[in-house]
Amino acid sequence: MGLKVFFDVLSQPSRAVLIFCQANGLKFTPCPVALRKGENKKPEYTKISPFNRVPAIQDGDFTMVESPAIMEYLASKYKCAPHWYPSDVEKRAKVNEFISWYHLELRYPVSGYSYNKVMVPLVTGKPVEEKVLAAQLEKNLKAFSSIEKYFIKDKNFIAGDALSAADLIGVCEIMQFATFDLDFAKDHPKLRDWIQRVRNETNPYFDEAHKIVYMVGKVKDPSKL
Amino acid sequence: MGLKVFFDVLSQPSRAVLIFCQANGLKFTPCPVALRKGENKKPEYTKISPFNRVPAIQDGDFTMVESPAIMEYLASKYKCAPHWYPSDVEKRAKVNEFISWYHLELRYPVSGYSYNKVMVPLVTGKPVEEKVLAAQLEKNLKAFSSIEKYFIKDKNFIAGDALSAADLIGVCEIMQFATFDLDFAKDHPKLRDWIQRVRNETNPYFDEAHKIVYMVGKVKDPSKL
Repeated sequence: MGLKVFFDVLSQPSRAVLIFCQANGLKFTPCPVALRKGENKKPEYTKISPFNRVPAIQDGDFTMVESPAIMEYLASKYKCAPHWYPSDVEKRAKVNEFISWYHLELRYPVSGYSYNKVMVPLVTGKPVEEKVLAAQLEKNLKAFSSIEKYFIKDKNFIAGDALSAADLIGVCEIMQFATFDLDFAKDHPKLRDWIQRVRNETNPYFDEAHKIVYMVGKVKDPSKL
Repeated sequence: MGLKVFFDVLSQPSRAVLIFCQANGLKFTPCPVALRKGENKKPEYTKISPFNRVPAIQDGDFTMVESPAIMEYLASKYKCAPHWYPSDVEKRAKVNEFISWYHLELRYPVSGYSYNKVMVPLVTGKPVEEKVLAAQLEKNLKAFSSIEKYFIKDKNFIAGDALSAADLIGVCEIMQFATFDLDFAKDHPKLRDWIQRVRNETNPYFDEAHKIVYMVGKVKDPSKL
């Protein structure tokens, strides 16, 4: 049966799981699920992901959803390099702390900004109010500041010197901003450097997974994000 | 220095951490932080929890926030009974999957309902629109159905036969509904039974931590929730 990974590179958590699998040299069958075509709502996919979301995995007869949980499962099952989920209790606590924080404080505002910037004009045919967008951006900038001041501080990565699942999840989420025509990391130099460190540690997979992000955002040189 | 737990029993995740510590017989100094008095915004608390939220812990010179991460840290550090975070890879994956899902799909709608039901009338002096409240309740009922159909199915607990951190976090969140005058578990018999199982497994600590919830909700017999 083997490992199947269901994903869409347009989805931030999908990219994180994809990069995780590739960077760890896991053998898997890539199963793209095109959100734009509604493939996530087809009955056969509902059997895999009852919430109709990506990513999801099938590993033999074991099926699961939710990207941070998927990565922890894969790291344990396939004995990935320990830096992804450190066995040191305090370092792992910092990985889990960020992952727990990220859902409501990073993923939610990033999705909110994307929704207002992209979906609202698509659905209504009118440009979204600048005020609404500015308020959404503000929430994201607040999250960026929290990442710099609380999670990274003077370390290279969230758990210290080495890359972990928390860094990958966080950076893949923030990279959604690279699809928009704005200097999102302005005034956040630590965030910018962190993005580049995560990118460097996981390349060439990082740039491959973000190809469509770079294309949409007309990013010519990802090292200058 | 020892372990200090900062909490407010009015906060769902605080109750989960408190019950976890007590049910595991951990030695700790309880440090109540009264949200209603704004104690969470005092400078000395900001040093512990920069996001000004509860719960938080200080364990010697190690400080952290975020309830699911705190419980995982405590379970590892103090070698709690393995059912809380099973070492079996698939069982642990199911614990983490629920915890990952819970933030946006359970915690967010529960908080939204509470905010509209309690805070909006307090701040505006007017009762909240019934339509708004009904829409919020709908989101919660959808989450309850997901818990029944996807997470519990025909098992006793999320990871199978034994109670885990996922069950405790989920049930403590849902218990916020017991403060409202409505039969929230109507049409969700599996959810109701699950709540009682988690309550039974963690009593007397569960009922102690929920004393204020029962009082506000005029719950005379918690076994009939």
